[in-house]
Amino acid sequence: MPHSQIGVFDSGIGGLTVLKELARAFPGENFLYFGDTARLPYGTKSPETIRAYSEQIMNRLAQKRVKAIVIACNTASSQVPENNWQGIPVYNVIGPGAYAAARSTARKSIGVLGTRATIESGVYVQAIHAFAPDAKVFTQACPMFVPLAEEGWIDDPVTDAVVARYLGLLLKNSVDTVVLGCTHYPLLKEAIRKFAGPSVALIDSGIAIAEFLEKDMNGKRILRNPSSKRAIQIEMSDLSPHTEARIRSILSGHEIASIQRHDLV
Amino acid sequence: MPHSQIGVFDSGIGGLTVLKELARAFPGENFLYFGDTARLPYGTKSPETIRAYSEQIMNRLAQKRVKAIVIACNTASSQVPENNWQGIPVYNVIGPGAYAAARSTARKSIGVLGTRATIESGVYVQAIHAFAPDAKVFTQACPMFVPLAEEGWIDDPVTDAVVARYLGLLLKNSVDTVVLGCTHYPLLKEAIRKFAGPSVALIDSGIAIAEFLEKDMNGKRILRNPSSKRAIQIEMSDLSPHTEARIRSILSGHEIASIQRHDLV
Repeated sequence: MPHSQIGVFDSGIGGLTVLKELARAFPGENFLYFGDTARLPYGTKSPETIRAYSEQIMNRLAQKRVKAIVIACNTASSQVPENNWQGIPVYNVIGPGAYAAARSTARKSIGVLGTRATIESGVYVQAIHAFAPDAKVFTQACPMFVPLAEEGWIDDPVTDAVVARYLGLLLKNSVDTVVLGCTHYPLLKEAIRKFAGPSVALIDSGIAIAEFLEKDMNGKRILRNPSSKRAIQIEMSDLSPHTEARIRSILSGHEIASIQRHDLV
Repeated sequence: MPHSQIGVFDSGIGGLTVLKELARAFPGENFLYFGDTARLPYGTKSPETIRAYSEQIMNRLAQKRVKAIVIACNTASSQVPENNWQGIPVYNVIGPGAYAAARSTARKSIGVLGTRATIESGVYVQAIHAFAPDAKVFTQACPMFVPLAEEGWIDDPVTDAVVARYLGLLLKNSVDTVVLGCTHYPLLKEAIRKFAGPSVALIDSGIAIAEFLEKDMNGKRILRNPSSKRAIQIEMSDLSPHTEARIRSILSGHEIASIQRHDLV
């Protein structure tokens, strides 16, 4: 069993976009990813349910003695306020995304895309205002984006039409920065980029969170793995051949040590 | 508490299209609907998980002493073989849908639309062949339909484009009958009708299952409710304001006695 893993979790496979950016940023680190595919999506569930499920997963990661927990799920991030769990540092995607957006905007006008639950929680508006109190923040719930990404309709006229619907509403507000506030959305980045044009900055949570981890490794809040040989382990609460194929496709270019089913209940 | 309810369950709110047809067909009956919104969708989960969740719900309905259980979820129907549970008659949507399709087709060529799990289970092909051994059956998984129905994009160019994508593939096979093999799909019936044209019969599970119940009431397998005053009770494993609004919208025209949250785990 590899030591000193960084734990990453999500309601499903969307958080693999975060894992992928972290694996790229930290080529010597070991990772344990937990995807709660048996109970996805979280975006349509109540705050109490999301909170309870997240705690079960964090207990699982703590049991595996990870050295850091990354909540690679915006919906769960909006419901877990702790910055440590059983003594383990916890990172959520909201803070890094909000910080990156506040740093990026010149016009002080930011757009946020997310699931219905993330948008309704208001957590991004609050987090962005903590870094940029004078910024205007416009939000748009995009319930169709996750199924489009799951279906793999990446370069597709249907996806372009859905992107135009959601982004069209948002860009009317002259935003110069758009937060991809769900970990599935980087899979649709090209379609979003095509519609938004080159002048709008797209904030990808995975890249933003890697910067935060790097800072805390430099500050010794998290110890770097001395080994340079890496292992990525994947646990899913439910595992179908379709899911396994999607995991390998999203993580293509990275070696996967194991993909296993692990029940939480 | 009303006596002699008919229990109806689904992974979420899609089964309300079945409840609606049953409520229309049996104006004197009481209904208890259970929607497992905390764990939806079932369509992406493994057979073992779907089976375990369905049993938990049937135990809940048995505890409430329902006189019949209608599995208003095609994914769950494909994983529950029993035709009774703790002595209570169980109806699933597959048999009635398959029977109605076999009766409808003149060209002996039938299309089936469903979630990925329902289609991959092959359960419709098997059930249709039990009634029409010589019929050709063509299937198409439609993962985008549920989110479109949930989003409420009913009369919408995006929905039309998605319908054209899925139906276009299916209609190449000259089918004259299409089974709407997911309880959400009747919500998109108009868009499907528009693309398929008037010569293709659309099989709606709710209508098909009402015929089966009627037959068993005539045969006394289920006793009719002597009262003519009706109550519809709704239980959901998770309940948000958005969900409650969708319930009331889908059941518009029917009085709802109660909508409550009930945890299963």
